[in-house]
Amino acid sequence: MAPSKLLKSICLIASRVLTESGSRPTFTPASVPRCRQFLATSSAVHQSVPASALKALQTTLGDKSVSSAEAVCEQHSHDESYHRTFLPDVVVYPKNTQEVSEIAKICSQHKLPMVPFGTGTGLEGGVTGSKGSVCIDLSHIDQILSLHSEDFDVTVEPGVTRQDLNNHLRDAGLWFPIDPGANASLCGMAATSASGTNAVRYGTMRENVLNLEVVLADGTVVHSAGKDKRAKKTAAGYNLTNLFVGSEGTLGIITKATLRLHGIPEATLAAVCSFDSVQEAVDSVTQVMQYGVPIARIEFLDEAMMEACNHYSHLDHKVAPTLFLEFHGSEESVKSQVQYVEEIVKANNGSDFQWADRPEDRSKLWKARHDCLYASLAERPGCKALCTDVCVPVSMLPQIIVQTQNDLKNFGLYGTIVGHVGDGNFHVAIPVDTDDQSEMATVKSFCSQLGRRALELGGTCTGEHGIGIGKQELLLKEVGEEGVATMRKIKRALDPDNLMNPGKVFSV
Amino acid sequence: MAPSKLLKSICLIASRVLTESGSRPTFTPASVPRCRQFLATSSAVHQSVPASALKALQTTLGDKSVSSAEAVCEQHSHDESYHRTFLPDVVVYPKNTQEVSEIAKICSQHKLPMVPFGTGTGLEGGVTGSKGSVCIDLSHIDQILSLHSEDFDVTVEPGVTRQDLNNHLRDAGLWFPIDPGANASLCGMAATSASGTNAVRYGTMRENVLNLEVVLADGTVVHSAGKDKRAKKTAAGYNLTNLFVGSEGTLGIITKATLRLHGIPEATLAAVCSFDSVQEAVDSVTQVMQYGVPIARIEFLDEAMMEACNHYSHLDHKVAPTLFLEFHGSEESVKSQVQYVEEIVKANNGSDFQWADRPEDRSKLWKARHDCLYASLAERPGCKALCTDVCVPVSMLPQIIVQTQNDLKNFGLYGTIVGHVGDGNFHVAIPVDTDDQSEMATVKSFCSQLGRRALELGGTCTGEHGIGIGKQELLLKEVGEEGVATMRKIKRALDPDNLMNPGKVFSV
Repeated sequence: MAPSKLLKSICLIASRVLTESGSRPTFTPASVPRCRQFLATSSAVHQSVPASALKALQTTLGDKSVSSAEAVCEQHSHDESYHRTFLPDVVVYPKNTQEVSEIAKICSQHKLPMVPFGTGTGLEGGVTGSKGSVCIDLSHIDQILSLHSEDFDVTVEPGVTRQDLNNHLRDAGLWFPIDPGANASLCGMAATSASGTNAVRYGTMRENVLNLEVVLADGTVVHSAGKDKRAKKTAAGYNLTNLFVGSEGTLGIITKATLRLHGIPEATLAAVCSFDSVQEAVDSVTQVMQYGVPIARIEFLDEAMMEACNHYSHLDHKVAPTLFLEFHGSEESVKSQVQYVEEIVKANNGSDFQWADRPEDRSKLWKARHDCLYASLAERPGCKALCTDVCVPVSMLPQIIVQTQNDLKNFGLYGTIVGHVGDGNFHVAIPVDTDDQSEMATVKSFCSQLGRRALELGGTCTGEHGIGIGKQELLLKEVGEEGVATMRKIKRALDPDNLMNPGKVFSV
Repeated sequence: MAPSKLLKSICLIASRVLTESGSRPTFTPASVPRCRQFLATSSAVHQSVPASALKALQTTLGDKSVSSAEAVCEQHSHDESYHRTFLPDVVVYPKNTQEVSEIAKICSQHKLPMVPFGTGTGLEGGVTGSKGSVCIDLSHIDQILSLHSEDFDVTVEPGVTRQDLNNHLRDAGLWFPIDPGANASLCGMAATSASGTNAVRYGTMRENVLNLEVVLADGTVVHSAGKDKRAKKTAAGYNLTNLFVGSEGTLGIITKATLRLHGIPEATLAAVCSFDSVQEAVDSVTQVMQYGVPIARIEFLDEAMMEACNHYSHLDHKVAPTLFLEFHGSEESVKSQVQYVEEIVKANNGSDFQWADRPEDRSKLWKARHDCLYASLAERPGCKALCTDVCVPVSMLPQIIVQTQNDLKNFGLYGTIVGHVGDGNFHVAIPVDTDDQSEMATVKSFCSQLGRRALELGGTCTGEHGIGIGKQELLLKEVGEEGVATMRKIKRALDPDNLMNPGKVFSV
């Protein structure tokens, strides 16, 4: 689709500004979405990184910890989604909180946007650059601090990933169950309010973060629940912890997280079962939830997803609406949970359970589940991932999932559905050719309609991916002008110059 | 203890200001704490309610819904604690959210402080008046709205109490487990981030509020998670819900709360067991938690508390460190939980379980637990309650509880200890003669020391009572200057004139 004359003029202007920032200078039809994004997010005009700021960063961090190499900047300009805006001007690698604070002071003084970067595994463009931005890669601050096994808590630095922590904890009989699939950094997971397959039993980051150390825009270091505090609950003042959780780097940079841990369950059982219809599969899930079975994982995969999974992960499951299940507890408790769920599944004409008994079978099963996004992408090589998520009250699930499958057909799109349906949360992954403007427009219409459908059913436009740059219109529909205005007031109060990851969540 | 000359002069000035506000004009030695409090909380000087504002309130609400009668104002000037500051000038009784919004607009226009009032069952003076304040009694807005049994959620208005809701839910097989003891209003419980006996299993208000309708200082109505939204989880924008939960009325007035419900457990068993020492009782609790037993209630009562309980609730339990326990689940799960806990108790030389088998025995047991504060007060008739709470990492409990018993002895105080020790949270209730300045000073020193001890052990100065006017110094110690400064920025952003329950949580 050719851009209109007006849009083309605007894009040309934008592309000149892009050139000044040192990013890719050429304007082609493919620049249109990038220019659109630029126009949407550039309400505050920032200058590019001046030499004096660069010098200050180099002096503070050492030359090796500051890079403007194009490859490095490109690598830090996007997450796993199709979203692209700007490359950062500079990528810095602080080695401790003090250095993060110094970086913030330098950026604040020079009014430079700061974009914190964990593992880049987000899905709504949360780490894309702003014009003249400094990307703060936190992966070199990577220690696991003060594990208190007896209190089930630990403090981690931002370079520690979910798998790093669980490897470290295994011998202590503990684990951190929040599992968004990707091997994300735990502080990044806090910043985006991640959840995932185990949330139905163990909650999301919101319930499992006890305290955060955060560097604010001006370099101030705040401990959301007080320095070295790790009480299981507190009623002392405003809940800053849960304000920073999910703020997507727009209020501050998380440099430490104190997390709640859980005991590795005495018994774990995993199984797969398939159904004749989506309705029956999802009805089973809603009934399991309504009976209050404390199931650890209950994941739904639709026919298209199962087919892609079989191809990608070399499985031979039936291509049908399917549930992947996992039960945790004592031997007796697991037995009783399985009995309840088997009865429910049978009543909904589900297949017999196919058990993944051995740990390696269980790992294979969940690896396949985690690889769902890559499996969908592999069905259309060369495409980028557009993976959207919504979350609705559990009783609304059958209706919206069936509607979504019909919508995909009606829009002529290939997409797979997979989700943490015990929470009412599901994803649609659509591999897209981002250079095909017509396809992009269709996919975006589909996603927008899915978001609106979720809102109409009392749900949210995102259960766990966040808003980033992809869902700002839907956020406005969801919480209204008053809601966004309230968020904006908080943002302005903590970051008056709009330097912390600007343009994300909402425009200021 | 006579006030110093300087303090007396200051108090006289303050008492003149008090006179202008229409509150009690006389200055006596007993005014000292009130004056001290006034000086502590009156950083923003507000004028008394002018006739034009009164007229506007009467026109908006009708004459019957606006009262300046002294008895009404007195009743609305305090909670169940000893804290006293000012009487409100006016008490208003809105009938719906629209009227609350109109009240806020009128108060905003006339720069009048607003103090929301639920049931007045708080313990840190959260509802005490400010000079010239309008107390907004929300008890007439009392409907239970949109119960979704299939999704385990319900929306309630601010006049609905915990018991109202549970009576309403019983036939649907559901309940709302958060139980701070008092029959508090649910929106008030959200405002103060209440928790209580069941929190160890079901979480606190923070985990069980899905959405709030809030009237801001300027009358704007905000829905923290979007109007009519009730998804189990969301990552859409800032977590306004958990910012308002626990903000103690200082950011807005909660006019609706959407709550997460739970199924009434298939089986419930309650029991009591006693120990030779505090250490052994508390060690049992920490071990139960460390084994991951999903116990529903595990309450510790020390010897003094058991003695007071026996007197007040006509029980005949052994006067010894005691645990009150409750188990929820399927028949099998409860059986397995009991087995684990009995073994742990036996290993710590605990007594055999004394079962409360019949529902009426269970009710009697938990009524006695809920009446602990009144039981303590009954040991010293005529006294007011000073009930403080702290929360520490569970492993620190034995140490701090033993220390606290010694501290009570060393300070020469009578006090009882009771708590939700599964969360590391416990209370000390001290009946005090508030007219005895010397005793008040001693009690305050004791409380302050207890708070500091909790902080040193990585805990919080309050697990569930909140800060109110009683714990502002401890909050500062807990989250530091940077933490309070961050809270203050948020407060100023949402309430620039400091009209919403001013002087609570921190001074602006």
